[in-house]
Amino acid sequence: MRIGLLTSGGDAPGMNATIRAIVRTAIYNKIEVYGINRGFAGLLEEDITPLSVYSVADILQRGGTILRTSRSDFFATDAGVKKGAAVLEEYGIEHLIIIGGDGSMNGALALQKLGVKVMGVPGTIDNDLGCSDNTIGFDTAVTTALDAISKIRDTTYSHNRINVVQVMGRKCGDIALYAGLSGGAEALILPEVETDLDAICERLLQGKDRGKLHSIVMLAEGCGNYRDYCVKIEERTQVTTRGTNLGYIQRGGSPSNADRILASFMGYNAVLSIIKKETGCIIVERCGSYLGIPIDEALKMPKIFRQDIYDMASVLSI
Amino acid sequence: MRIGLLTSGGDAPGMNATIRAIVRTAIYNKIEVYGINRGFAGLLEEDITPLSVYSVADILQRGGTILRTSRSDFFATDAGVKKGAAVLEEYGIEHLIIIGGDGSMNGALALQKLGVKVMGVPGTIDNDLGCSDNTIGFDTAVTTALDAISKIRDTTYSHNRINVVQVMGRKCGDIALYAGLSGGAEALILPEVETDLDAICERLLQGKDRGKLHSIVMLAEGCGNYRDYCVKIEERTQVTTRGTNLGYIQRGGSPSNADRILASFMGYNAVLSIIKKETGCIIVERCGSYLGIPIDEALKMPKIFRQDIYDMASVLSI
Amino acid sequence: MRIGLLTSGGDAPGMNATIRAIVRTAIYNKIEVYGINRGFAGLLEEDITPLSVYSVADILQRGGTILRTSRSDFFATDAGVKKGAAVLEEYGIEHLIIIGGDGSMNGALALQKLGVKVMGVPGTIDNDLGCSDNTIGFDTAVTTALDAISKIRDTTYSHNRINVVQVMGRKCGDIALYAGLSGGAEALILPEVETDLDAICERLLQGKDRGKLHSIVMLAEGCGNYRDYCVKIEERTQVTTRGTNLGYIQRGGSPSNADRILASFMGYNAVLSIIKKETGCIIVERCGSYLGIPIDEALKMPKIFRQDIYDMASVLSI
Amino acid sequence: MRIGLLTSGGDAPGMNATIRAIVRTAIYNKIEVYGINRGFAGLLEEDITPLSVYSVADILQRGGTILRTSRSDFFATDAGVKKGAAVLEEYGIEHLIIIGGDGSMNGALALQKLGVKVMGVPGTIDNDLGCSDNTIGFDTAVTTALDAISKIRDTTYSHNRINVVQVMGRKCGDIALYAGLSGGAEALILPEVETDLDAICERLLQGKDRGKLHSIVMLAEGCGNYRDYCVKIEERTQVTTRGTNLGYIQRGGSPSNADRILASFMGYNAVLSIIKKETGCIIVERCGSYLGIPIDEALKMPKIFRQDIYDMASVLSI
Repeated sequence: MRIGLLTSGGDAPGMNATIRAIVRTAIYNKIEVYGINRGFAGLLEEDITPLSVYSVADILQRGGTILRTSRSDFFATDAGVKKGAAVLEEYGIEHLIIIGGDGSMNGALALQKLGVKVMGVPGTIDNDLGCSDNTIGFDTAVTTALDAISKIRDTTYSHNRINVVQVMGRKCGDIALYAGLSGGAEALILPEVETDLDAICERLLQGKDRGKLHSIVMLAEGCGNYRDYCVKIEERTQVTTRGTNLGYIQRGGSPSNADRILASFMGYNAVLSIIKKETGCIIVERCGSYLGIPIDEALKMPKIFRQDIYDMASVLSI
Repeated sequence: MRIGLLTSGGDAPGMNATIRAIVRTAIYNKIEVYGINRGFAGLLEEDITPLSVYSVADILQRGGTILRTSRSDFFATDAGVKKGAAVLEEYGIEHLIIIGGDGSMNGALALQKLGVKVMGVPGTIDNDLGCSDNTIGFDTAVTTALDAISKIRDTTYSHNRINVVQVMGRKCGDIALYAGLSGGAEALILPEVETDLDAICERLLQGKDRGKLHSIVMLAEGCGNYRDYCVKIEERTQVTTRGTNLGYIQRGGSPSNADRILASFMGYNAVLSIIKKETGCIIVERCGSYLGIPIDEALKMPKIFRQDIYDMASVLSI
Repeated sequence: MRIGLLTSGGDAPGMNATIRAIVRTAIYNKIEVYGINRGFAGLLEEDITPLSVYSVADILQRGGTILRTSRSDFFATDAGVKKGAAVLEEYGIEHLIIIGGDGSMNGALALQKLGVKVMGVPGTIDNDLGCSDNTIGFDTAVTTALDAISKIRDTTYSHNRINVVQVMGRKCGDIALYAGLSGGAEALILPEVETDLDAICERLLQGKDRGKLHSIVMLAEGCGNYRDYCVKIEERTQVTTRGTNLGYIQRGGSPSNADRILASFMGYNAVLSIIKKETGCIIVERCGSYLGIPIDEALKMPKIFRQDIYDMASVLSI
Repeated sequence: MRIGLLTSGGDAPGMNATIRAIVRTAIYNKIEVYGINRGFAGLLEEDITPLSVYSVADILQRGGTILRTSRSDFFATDAGVKKGAAVLEEYGIEHLIIIGGDGSMNGALALQKLGVKVMGVPGTIDNDLGCSDNTIGFDTAVTTALDAISKIRDTTYSHNRINVVQVMGRKCGDIALYAGLSGGAEALILPEVETDLDAICERLLQGKDRGKLHSIVMLAEGCGNYRDYCVKIEERTQVTTRGTNLGYIQRGGSPSNADRILASFMGYNAVLSIIKKETGCIIVERCGSYLGIPIDEALKMPKIFRQDIYDMASVLSI
């Protein structure tokens, strides 16, 4: 058997660990693996090479994706998907594994409708998929945010200021929520919770009255830009307020232990599923177990907001 | 209400995050917290101070335990336990929270037999408790081991050698198992798996034949000392073999994101359990949920070896 | 004797290591040290406390400044300086050590004109003082930028993009220059070198022709904002160009080894100079030696641009 | 012109940055570079390949050496050196650059006696060369030791213990000296200073009397094994004493900023020296400048112990 493998959409730390797990599990089971470079764009341009055990040596610990990634406008058209399916057939690729976020999974679905066997692996730092407790890259992005918060806290403390730290996540507030909990942020601004800026500022001032010399406010990008919040918070609190957008550092870096384990399990199980004749699934993690869920079903699952973590974070940052 | 809090046995990264969670959740709920320094030894010597919201400021990210810890021979006697119970009564401490490993939980049980209300929180880098999927400090210890493996790999590659990396864990191989998986170790020597050194050496030589220029062997301390393995492996493979015992660096360091989340949940839930009138439990994590299990039952639960991870690690390191 | 100590202006990693060195060297030599909180503002408000050997325990490795810092508008007036001198006299402080950048040194000069004995220590991440080869905090800021570049490179590579990384430094390009050299940036935009964006873009395209799949452009904040450069570079190269402003993470973090050594030497020598009856000097590092230079002279020394490093960086990034 | 390049002896972080600087500076100046794998052993076995600009892409930040290294017994004989010289001639290599420590420089001298043009670059974590203020890899090794000390301090504090931290350096105490200063160690045991263990223990006990709850003792490997010191210190102080040998982690890791700058300068200047028709030199750093010194002279220069740093460290760790 021959399978194909591509990474698509925004890159995430741990994609390489996933690629390694897929390639090695496949080869161990006498399955050939072809790597498709630059996502669906590379598929259309036939930028395809066979992968060996050695192609994936020394990549477990590296950020990014050795297959590289892209977004393709043409692939989003009917003609594009058709061309993609034809290329796969031409190369004798019987099953395609796609590592990416929800946009990439929609690409997988489009191919599936043309009869292509596909398997999805959730790789995105945003953790915005309802079907899986965790996505590959999320823990590393939070870890990077934590390191940044720790550095920003040093200078925020030294100047007795407030600092608004903007993190990624698109419409999902999970990076801000988890980094806020783990970094001890004094306030969280998340798309899942209606923002009452007056209440937040009052809370910050109460902290100041009790002796807190500085505050960190975590801001999910889905709620807007840090500059606006800085102005508004400084107006309301009369405390000098600065801000930082962590930007692209959140996408890179060596994957954390948790992401390496998750990536290994997901890549390994994607291939085992194919061996078991499963297809059309996305591999998800639920409560520590790994299983395949039909992609269309999986994409319809609502992302549940962890109100419990939000409440706990409020208590712990008093 | 007034509760007491101590850390006992070997320290673990995340103990401070747990202390912070307990103190803040308690105070938020109008419960007083007394910190008992140096574990049971400090209890016997009445080394006890009230803790405030500020006592635990700026400790979330710090390794070790601000309460410090110890092992007490006297506390292990009947007279010792009796004295401990008396001190708690004298200070009006109605409920004692103990953060530590299985030895510390036995201390908790001893106090409970004298009618003291106790609550346990599993804090140990060894991850050797059958009752909880994860213990506080384990992920950080694995993360430290990963960083060390990465550094050792640089020099091992440069010299085309084998390096045996010895990690902690007492009788449990989990640090070696998880760091071996995440670090891409070429072989694992664990107390849970019978070691066939000839088979391991053959595997290393096969890797060499296929072009691997170096190998890392993870050794759990429960299987013996790295020096003996270096000699035996070098004899069998004729490849220069060096070794490293990571030692005490594994006990320290800023807790990882995973450990901060675990510590926050466990500390928070320990206090919520007390508020719900539960007692005599150890707070455990099972498949992402947090619950209390009676300590005596919890201590009897066998630690299940993750054969699936071991098998996966074998496949992924070909 | 009694000396005073304050940190002023922007904070820098290693200020705490400097404070520790000053306090311990002073106490070792039977000199009392009073810490003045929040820079000149705290001096005017008499926010002053004696420091002991223990006040500075466990701060060597911490970013920021335990004395905190500020900018004071009132201190910049004649009345302000006079008030400052009076407070010092009232507290019996015979000699004032000021850790900060050039603005802070101007404050020192103003006090000196009123007869106050002052000693300066150059603490700023910008490395913008002509008098000293290195300033405290600079190596750590470059180290932080390196870590960020490494992460940004992962995602920039994965998408075959250009990324413009904006760093601090005010009018000085040193953070960009050194981080660019150490991080292997493909182009540098510095205030000290006239920017020929066409030439830079041509160079990036030549790299692409030779097979470079991505590029990092270091931008010193003295040259403008990364957003403008992204637009211009994307226009000229037709390569997707993203950007990141590292922002406040550059001000924090545990000081690097080089900064700890520099801070220790400078703090130690500041006190030794006072003991030797020197005054009105700033402690500088020149070619590995530490000496005191009169502050007014020191401030007039032009900062020499390291053209040799710029040229070397051009060659090494081909 | 064609030059050869090898790394020899113990590997050091920054060797790859040096290789990159040499290859790129050479190619920029139209000089061919041949990489000789595995040091002198690879020279004798003709394990030689041409290097291009791309051979050294993405290695600046990596520990170890892509050319790998070794020690060769045969090369140490007259016949070995003769064979080496013959191989170089056969490959048309006019000038050989050797990156390594003093043993490697002796190999360079042996080749030079046979008329081979050689150039040395000091790469060793030990910083044990009298001719150069710093050697490539030293700052990174100290940085790794600092990180380890910080982790060990967490657990040492938590248990109120003493911990003896053994570091590398062969007969040179510089890693212990600098890491001791930067890490705030309470005592240093160095080969350059006669050890008075009674005085050290008294000092540790005085610290305890003044309230220090734990102590770190830095031990240079040139003074013996940490286990012996643990026993003796525990005997004398009656404080529980543990120890850690940092081992091979000190040889690896991504080079620090200081090492990348040093490596870039040294590699760049090695090639510029060859272009200027210099030969038989080792490139050294003296007070921030880079120059070539004849190898035989350079090897005779005594390593000067930095008594001033030792004295300063004593004062700062009170």
